[in-house]
Amino acid sequence: MTTKPVIKKRLDTQSSLIKIMKRRGLTLATAESITGGGLASAITDVSGASAVFLGSIVSYSDQSKTKFLGIPKRTLTKSTAVSETVARSMAEAARKEFGADYAISTTGVAGPGRAYGQKPGTVWIAIASKRETVTIELALSGDRDAIRKATIESALACLSRILTP
Amino acid sequence: MTTKPVIKKRLDTQSSLIKIMKRRGLTLATAESITGGGLASAITDVSGASAVFLGSIVSYSDQSKTKFLGIPKRTLTKSTAVSETVARSMAEAARKEFGADYAISTTGVAGPGRAYGQKPGTVWIAIASKRETVTIELALSGDRDAIRKATIESALACLSRILTP
Repeated sequence: MTTKPVIKKRLDTQSSLIKIMKRRGLTLATAESITGGGLASAITDVSGASAVFLGSIVSYSDQSKTKFLGIPKRTLTKSTAVSETVARSMAEAARKEFGADYAISTTGVAGPGRAYGQKPGTVWIAIASKRETVTIELALSGDRDAIRKATIESALACLSRILTP
Repeated sequence: MTTKPVIKKRLDTQSSLIKIMKRRGLTLATAESITGGGLASAITDVSGASAVFLGSIVSYSDQSKTKFLGIPKRTLTKSTAVSETVARSMAEAARKEFGADYAISTTGVAGPGRAYGQKPGTVWIAIASKRETVTIELALSGDRDAIRKATIESALACLSRILTP
């Protein structure tokens, strides 16, 4: 019973996002690390998403961040995968590679353990458009599942706010 | 209350899959259309998935199937995206591009409407390894959410069966 309103609310966010983007003729892509495909999955929960959503690169390894998103190895070594620099590069690369108007990226530590010297709940989101790239740092609490879900919800909420300021 | 056992069972499948693959030193990638990132998300629900799972190409448009998975435009025109041919090509390309031991692909019609001249619930799954590519056709019933969830569960169950015959 308690999870119902959350799921409903989440689907409402995606639905209105897709409606707005469709009306404006805008397209969307994602590049995901911490959310592992969950952001794309949330977007494509909505029937008709294909009018807006082009796809996602789920780059769960450093190698795939280099191969598919062109993030230099030295950047991953220097900044680590969980950084503003990498979040920004992921979103910009996804936008370019998919030829989308907007792209969202997610990178962070889902836990339970620390990674890249950072504690679970440390998350970076970036949203790239032709005009600019916005980055957001989150410090989330909760278990792995809660952190991943909150990242997805925050990413969708951020894009909504950018599109309807 | 009723969804609890299903979620638990699903997480069990992924956990044992990752345990088996980790023990054998095997890696996994996915290429997703109908599941829209949901298969990668289900796999990465498990903490420690990064030891096995390299990433996913969520190719939600025909263009992204061509760009990231090298599926020729004429194949998409001739066979359509929802076909054994395209499922097979997606899995083989994902395996090659990620350099993974195994790759799973999903393509189908989630609904509510028909697509590519086929009714909702028509799904193709392919699992590629170095040795062979196995394809599975599903005829699922239910709404969009049920069809996508059943596709994810079937894909995970098929790989489990291949790894532990």
